[in-house]
Amino acid sequence: MNHNPKIIGASIPRLDGKDKVTGRALYTDDLKFPGMLYGALHRSRLPHARIKKVDTSAAKKIKGVKDVVTGADTPQIKYGNWRLVPGSQDELPLAVDKVRFIGDEIAAVCAVDRETAIKAAEAIEVEYEELPAIYSVEEATAEGAPLLHDESPGNVSLTREISYGDLEGLLAQADYVREDFFKVHAVSHAYLEPCSSIAVPEEGGRVTLYTSTQTPYIVQCLLASTLDIPENHVRVVKTQVGGGFGGKMEMRPWEFAAAFMALRTGRPVKFTLTRSDELAFGRRRHPMSIRSKVGFTKDGKLLAKDFEVMLDGGAYNAMGPTATFLCGTFGNMLYNFQAYRYRGRHVYTNKPPASAMRGFGAPQAAFAQESQMNMAAEELGIDPIDLRLINAMETGDVIPDVATISSCGFKESLEKVRQVSGWDAKRKEKKPGVGLGIGCFSFISGGVFNWFNTKYNFAAAEVTVYPDGTAQLNTMACDIGQGPDTVLRQILAAELGIGIEKIRLVSMDTALTPKADLGTWGSRVTLMNGNAIIDAAKKIKDMLKPVLFDHLDLNQIHEIAFEDDRVLVKANPKKSMSFGECVYHALRGRRGEPLTARGYYTPRDKGLVSPAFSFGAQVAEVAVDQDTGLVTVTNTYTAHDCGVAINKMAVEGQLEGAIQMGLGYTLSEAFVMEQGRTLNTSFLDYKMPAAEDMPPSTYVEVETYEPEGPFGAKEAGEGLAIPTAPAIADAVYQATGFRALELPITPEKVLKGIGRLK
Amino acid sequence: MNHNPKIIGASIPRLDGKDKVTGRALYTDDLKFPGMLYGALHRSRLPHARIKKVDTSAAKKIKGVKDVVTGADTPQIKYGNWRLVPGSQDELPLAVDKVRFIGDEIAAVCAVDRETAIKAAEAIEVEYEELPAIYSVEEATAEGAPLLHDESPGNVSLTREISYGDLEGLLAQADYVREDFFKVHAVSHAYLEPCSSIAVPEEGGRVTLYTSTQTPYIVQCLLASTLDIPENHVRVVKTQVGGGFGGKMEMRPWEFAAAFMALRTGRPVKFTLTRSDELAFGRRRHPMSIRSKVGFTKDGKLLAKDFEVMLDGGAYNAMGPTATFLCGTFGNMLYNFQAYRYRGRHVYTNKPPASAMRGFGAPQAAFAQESQMNMAAEELGIDPIDLRLINAMETGDVIPDVATISSCGFKESLEKVRQVSGWDAKRKEKKPGVGLGIGCFSFISGGVFNWFNTKYNFAAAEVTVYPDGTAQLNTMACDIGQGPDTVLRQILAAELGIGIEKIRLVSMDTALTPKADLGTWGSRVTLMNGNAIIDAAKKIKDMLKPVLFDHLDLNQIHEIAFEDDRVLVKANPKKSMSFGECVYHALRGRRGEPLTARGYYTPRDKGLVSPAFSFGAQVAEVAVDQDTGLVTVTNTYTAHDCGVAINKMAVEGQLEGAIQMGLGYTLSEAFVMEQGRTLNTSFLDYKMPAAEDMPPSTYVEVETYEPEGPFGAKEAGEGLAIPTAPAIADAVYQATGFRALELPITPEKVLKGIGRLK
Repeated sequence: MNHNPKIIGASIPRLDGKDKVTGRALYTDDLKFPGMLYGALHRSRLPHARIKKVDTSAAKKIKGVKDVVTGADTPQIKYGNWRLVPGSQDELPLAVDKVRFIGDEIAAVCAVDRETAIKAAEAIEVEYEELPAIYSVEEATAEGAPLLHDESPGNVSLTREISYGDLEGLLAQADYVREDFFKVHAVSHAYLEPCSSIAVPEEGGRVTLYTSTQTPYIVQCLLASTLDIPENHVRVVKTQVGGGFGGKMEMRPWEFAAAFMALRTGRPVKFTLTRSDELAFGRRRHPMSIRSKVGFTKDGKLLAKDFEVMLDGGAYNAMGPTATFLCGTFGNMLYNFQAYRYRGRHVYTNKPPASAMRGFGAPQAAFAQESQMNMAAEELGIDPIDLRLINAMETGDVIPDVATISSCGFKESLEKVRQVSGWDAKRKEKKPGVGLGIGCFSFISGGVFNWFNTKYNFAAAEVTVYPDGTAQLNTMACDIGQGPDTVLRQILAAELGIGIEKIRLVSMDTALTPKADLGTWGSRVTLMNGNAIIDAAKKIKDMLKPVLFDHLDLNQIHEIAFEDDRVLVKANPKKSMSFGECVYHALRGRRGEPLTARGYYTPRDKGLVSPAFSFGAQVAEVAVDQDTGLVTVTNTYTAHDCGVAINKMAVEGQLEGAIQMGLGYTLSEAFVMEQGRTLNTSFLDYKMPAAEDMPPSTYVEVETYEPEGPFGAKEAGEGLAIPTAPAIADAVYQATGFRALELPITPEKVLKGIGRLK
Repeated sequence: MNHNPKIIGASIPRLDGKDKVTGRALYTDDLKFPGMLYGALHRSRLPHARIKKVDTSAAKKIKGVKDVVTGADTPQIKYGNWRLVPGSQDELPLAVDKVRFIGDEIAAVCAVDRETAIKAAEAIEVEYEELPAIYSVEEATAEGAPLLHDESPGNVSLTREISYGDLEGLLAQADYVREDFFKVHAVSHAYLEPCSSIAVPEEGGRVTLYTSTQTPYIVQCLLASTLDIPENHVRVVKTQVGGGFGGKMEMRPWEFAAAFMALRTGRPVKFTLTRSDELAFGRRRHPMSIRSKVGFTKDGKLLAKDFEVMLDGGAYNAMGPTATFLCGTFGNMLYNFQAYRYRGRHVYTNKPPASAMRGFGAPQAAFAQESQMNMAAEELGIDPIDLRLINAMETGDVIPDVATISSCGFKESLEKVRQVSGWDAKRKEKKPGVGLGIGCFSFISGGVFNWFNTKYNFAAAEVTVYPDGTAQLNTMACDIGQGPDTVLRQILAAELGIGIEKIRLVSMDTALTPKADLGTWGSRVTLMNGNAIIDAAKKIKDMLKPVLFDHLDLNQIHEIAFEDDRVLVKANPKKSMSFGECVYHALRGRRGEPLTARGYYTPRDKGLVSPAFSFGAQVAEVAVDQDTGLVTVTNTYTAHDCGVAINKMAVEGQLEGAIQMGLGYTLSEAFVMEQGRTLNTSFLDYKMPAAEDMPPSTYVEVETYEPEGPFGAKEAGEGLAIPTAPAIADAVYQATGFRALELPITPEKVLKGIGRLK
């Protein structure tokens, strides 16, 4: 492992931390431009209706209103992230004929101040023809259900099927077969920064959009397409982003509305959502109805799995197709078995669209799979960790055309978590009201399947080095709070052998950083951008090495190393030159041409899913109050293989955040909905765990070396969000005998489960 | 001349025009950042003094004041643009021991608002030991004069001497010899936008400076050096600039103060000067005392010239060394002669520093040279145009090691201006109070002599092309109002054969545009950046040509052309492909690597001065009121060789502006000074010509093809600022018999000259 331990594997505090805690970091809503107008949206008040008429006359008359637009004014071009399947692009920036959920965007206004804009948006009158609405996948797929989209009979927009092996035969010959049904619910990304976008018009019909996004390039492409202007007439600049978790990876109607009205009015237009907007109308995690049937030998060998999922997609596809694909993959991960059948259906309902959210289908699939493993273990009389060890994937396992497991620390993770949690002793003990449960996970390090259908590389980096010994890294990689602004500089610093403080980072401007970057999702950034950076840095080093050979008159057999801001002869480190001096000489030799190189990364020959997979296991300890049904998580233990952790502190930060989200998902967060309307639209009613709810957490790093990853690294962002729900559910079962097959595990459900409430 | 006449040579309105007239364009003072502080300077109240003590205690106590700094707090590193001669760097951002002019910066403060900052700056108490002060080059160079800088005995900071040929011998054998003394005065750049700078602190001790500058790269380097941090810890972003004319081509004390205090306080700091600051303390055009001795044969052949100039540099060198060099060059241009002696001395005085201003020494030298030509013509009995034709430079003339005249339309300019002005008839006519005079000029197209001592190329461009048929041009080239944001896009459009509206321009950010660019001065931008752009575009075309050969299965003998957004076979234009489609295929073939290329330009083997020279002649017609002495310019006629005019409308815009500046310089603008203090510090007292003062103007383009220039172009920005003063002076003489040897030609001087005032 050829890397500098002061940089790779160190715990380096976030370089953007100080700016963020002192308030100096600029988020989109912090920006103001002269002459800027403020936008507001008029949204559907019905869950399903035809639009008969939109009357904007009253709104237009309000003093200070500068523009009012409806779908009819726009180019009416549908969009969606799955450009690879154009038919999947089912959304219009502003509705034209029909609305499909309460909150569907119908019209937009901009005015000289926010209050006027809101007043004008409210003054728009829409005449509807109300249509029957459906709110669950069961209703939606029932015979004769009303259709949301004419193009999708049965309200199923996409079906993904996977099938290999002799499923029926193996299930028939299994010693033990079980079939279970699980239900998981929607939760909010609840990023701290509500969405904000500012479009600034430019000469020549161009527009620059400052926006809180995880995917500047995707926003650029889809905004251009919906505005019907050339792609590169749109420039997207990501400012600081206060979290995304999958909720900011699509183009959004207010981005379109800001740009469209900016081009019409010739003035900058800003939209900033409220928390209430976000909770009432925003993207959410897919609710799913899951059927899973598994067959084991009596020794615990998993033979076959029949996995069926209905995703409740809400009104539009959004990132639902990917979740539908990934659920099938995640149902097929972690364990080896000979036959698999997956049928995933993405179903429309008259609710706010579900979309990507941290884990991207995996938390839901894993809740089912891991709960079922725990249930099977009990009935087979095998310890759940042992049952997993029997079936666990290992390095070298291959799912043909789908995945190559080039590094896998799953078994080590299981052993470690068993040890640090005191598993064996505690599971034997069996105290009422107290329990210990386990959940495991695997996750991708970015996707291979090119659903956005980009013609560019998946990641790109531009590195420039200067005679003052510094370097500059230009990348479209998106730090949305997860830390790549630090981690990517660590990777460049390690490769060039210079201090991380020497590197200036410019990121996330589609006009100024090399194309393309697919953005932050699927835990792709460290691996993909890291590889692109290393590619660029190696080209830089090739420009610098000749300087040493010439100036030090070296025997040509030598290898050159880059360490501690010096360039040196590996076999004789005293023969060296400072990095800056070396750049100076190279620059002179190039007659003034700067030392800049671009690097790229696209996963090739790495299956269909991801170039690398993380693994891990988590044990949760709970105490359940038998009178109130309240579940308190008293401890968590996590063992985790993310390859080489580039920044240990950053990985632990991901773990803490993941546990917080996992707790909320499992125990307290849920949307209360009535006839398609979300009732809990503030953080007073939507219950996220707070700092005081966080359990102590023990973390064990299981280091493997991922050959496809930069310095051996792979993902650490999303996998950790997966295991908490099944681990807690199992612990609750151990503590109470109540096995939750539906989330969240509310006190009410616990009390009912233990017979204390009818 | 292989170019597209719809683009090259067209009259294309400025692409930034609409943004500017609608107020959408953002100048530095338009920008606001959260938490931004406002800065103010405390300036010297004496013209020459030692600083005994700076008491900031009262200032620091004022509520809202966040920082107060004096020279003692700073790294005290001297700076100046002539890095090639480090000893010439004579300025400190904030004075330490001594002040040398009224306005010399002593201390800086920043506070929560501008009013508080100004109050605090005024509350700073400086204890001085007053020193004797000097205000003219004559006083400064007199025996025993007080010294401004200990390092410069006799107050001469730099002497430039040129000598070739047998000067004394040729003067002795001349039929006609005359010696004259001229004096020219200081004027203000009077750019519409007073200087403004905002420094934004960044993590890692870095700083980004938004600033109204002509030279972002120079500001970056000198700011880093005076802050004592690595060069690339400073990022300079030029916003829109409301004129520069040479007055914004150096690092300025408020840029330092903003950055220094931003780093100390951790908050953005803005400085914006007032018009009064600009007029009282700002850079100005060099006053000069000029002695010129010339010898002719009786047939009008110029034999030799002895040219001596003392430049009144004010308190510091600023760009004075360049002006001192260039005066010597301009004294040696336009006409051929066999012997030349030049002695230029740059002299310190206790006044605000003079520096570069449009023409860079040439308006002053030309006033002397061209006036003297007119005076000699009269005495020799030769028409002034004929006298010039006898001596005029032509294409192919070479001043060894100094200049290669690779294109020259001087003689054609003389003939044209004679014709359009009705010269022959009008000069014969001789009406009292009415006159016609001529002045001629030559100017550089950027400099060769690398006084800033950059190790990078002089100009760089990055071009990226996209499958949507658009292109992006990244350049550090500075549009300060003169038009390169349009002209450089014309050049790229012409070279790539695409519409100018297809090109997005990103300019003037030292972190994001390729290094380096020396900025806007010396009329360098069109030629130097244009060449860099063509270099980059040719590389792009080389990436695209193979696509056509492959996809159209072409005979390999074909040449490929780029026209009208298509790529085509030159011999058979029907065989073609759209530009965007061609890029698409190239991108696919490159497996996702974007089509980006960088181009560079550095003049090589082009002498010491400039790669190309413009030429021209101007005739001015005046009416002089014999009672008031008021000179009214009633008409101007200009013939001008700027090579191929890329944008005719832009060239004419330069001419209009140049005439306006020339009128002011010649007739009305002057600083009224008393003991080193400038008294006229508003546009009420400092008299610039207004729109109503502008004479009708006739313009004739004399097109040559400059082989070193992009599409045959050379400079058109500064040369036009040169001829107006001698032309008017000559016309006044024709009208009144009064020959002005000093500028400005005020009514008072005219009345004295014609004996109407004592």
